[in-house]
Amino acid sequence: MAGAQSTAVQDLIDALGRLPGIGPKSAQRIAYHLLKADAEESRRLAEAVLTAKERVGFCQRCFNLSEGELCGICADDRRDQHVVCVVEEPRDVIAVERTREFRGRYHVLGGAIDHLQGIGPDQLKVRELLERIGTEGVTEVIICTNPNLEGEATALYLSRVLDMPGLTVSRIASGLPVGGDLEYADELTLGRALEGRRTVERSEA
Amino acid sequence: MAGAQSTAVQDLIDALGRLPGIGPKSAQRIAYHLLKADAEESRRLAEAVLTAKERVGFCQRCFNLSEGELCGICADDRRDQHVVCVVEEPRDVIAVERTREFRGRYHVLGGAIDHLQGIGPDQLKVRELLERIGTEGVTEVIICTNPNLEGEATALYLSRVLDMPGLTVSRIASGLPVGGDLEYADELTLGRALEGRRTVERSEA
Repeated sequence: MAGAQSTAVQDLIDALGRLPGIGPKSAQRIAYHLLKADAEESRRLAEAVLTAKERVGFCQRCFNLSEGELCGICADDRRDQHVVCVVEEPRDVIAVERTREFRGRYHVLGGAIDHLQGIGPDQLKVRELLERIGTEGVTEVIICTNPNLEGEATALYLSRVLDMPGLTVSRIASGLPVGGDLEYADELTLGRALEGRRTVERSEA
Repeated sequence: MAGAQSTAVQDLIDALGRLPGIGPKSAQRIAYHLLKADAEESRRLAEAVLTAKERVGFCQRCFNLSEGELCGICADDRRDQHVVCVVEEPRDVIAVERTREFRGRYHVLGGAIDHLQGIGPDQLKVRELLERIGTEGVTEVIICTNPNLEGEATALYLSRVLDMPGLTVSRIASGLPVGGDLEYADELTLGRALEGRRTVERSEA
C-alpha cells in the first residue's frame, strides 16, 4: 500500500474522513472527485470553508450563527419577541424555520444536558435564557430540544427553572411522524402518541 | 427562511453539497460541524484540498495519481514490469493494492467506454497502453475494469486490440462475493458464478 497513494492525497482523504458522516470510502471518493474536477471547484470549497469560519460567529442575543452582532431573526422587528423557541443547535433553528409555523424568536442552548459527557446547565446558555426572559418581556417559551434522552433531560430541567408567574412553558409534541405507519412505529413513539392524544372536534350534526 | 441562514454559511453548505455522495442534509451537518469545531480543523481541511490539487498530477507512465513524474508503483523497481493491470480510475489501483495479490504495474484508463456519454477509446489512455506493451516488454495484461456495462464494453474492446502474439490477456472473475449468500445474489451474478465455475482439486485418497 505504501507507494500506492501520494501523501497529499492521503492528507486530503484524512481531512475529509474527519468530517461527520463521512467514512473512509466516501472520503476517498470525494478526494478523487476533487482531484479530477477543475481547480476552480477545489478553490471554491477551500474558500467557502475559510470564509465561513472567519465571518460567522454567534448572535449576541440568541446564540444562533450570525455574521453580525445579531442574527437575521433577532434583527427582524416583525418577529414576535414575546415568544421564544429554545433549541439545542443552530441547525434546529433552520428546521423550525422551515415549518413556517413560528413567528417568534429563538434561543440556542449550544447542546443538551448530558451528564455522561459532563455537560450540565452551566455549559449551556441557560443563564442567558433566564436573563432574556427578564429583559425582553417574554411571555411564552417553547422547549424544542430533541425528543431523545439528553433533549428530554434538558426540557425537564428547563421546565423547572422556568416555573415563573406569567410565563407559559410548552414542550413540542412527540408522536408518529406525518405520513408514518403505525405498524413500523417503535413502541416508545407510539406510547407517546397515545399519551399525547387529542380530543377530536365534532362538528354539530 | 431568508434571514435564518447567513450567506457565508449557505455558501459553505452549497460548496459541500456539490461533492459526490453529499446531500443537502449532510452538507448542512458538516458545515455546522466545521463552524463549531476549532479553526485549526477548517484550516487543515482547506489546506489539504488546495495542496492536493496543487501537487498531485498524473504518473507519466500509468496515469495513476502522482506527486512526481512517476507514481510510487512505477518508480518501484521491485514491481514486475511484465504484468500490467488495467483499471478505470486511480481509486481502483488502491482497491487492487489492498488485496496484496498483485505485484505488477498498473495502467489507468481514466474511465470506461460509454457511448451514451460520448466516451470512446480515444478519450481513454488506450493508445498509451498499446505503446507501453511495445516498449516495456509486457507479457500479461489483466483487464480489471468494473463488472458493469461500461467496464465490460471496455474489457471487450481491449481484449480485441490486445490480441497480439506472446501476450496473455485475462479478465478478473465475476461471481459471488466471498462471505456472500446464494439466496441474495442477483441472477446475473449467480449466472456468472456458474459460468466461471472451476474444477475442484481432489486430493488422492
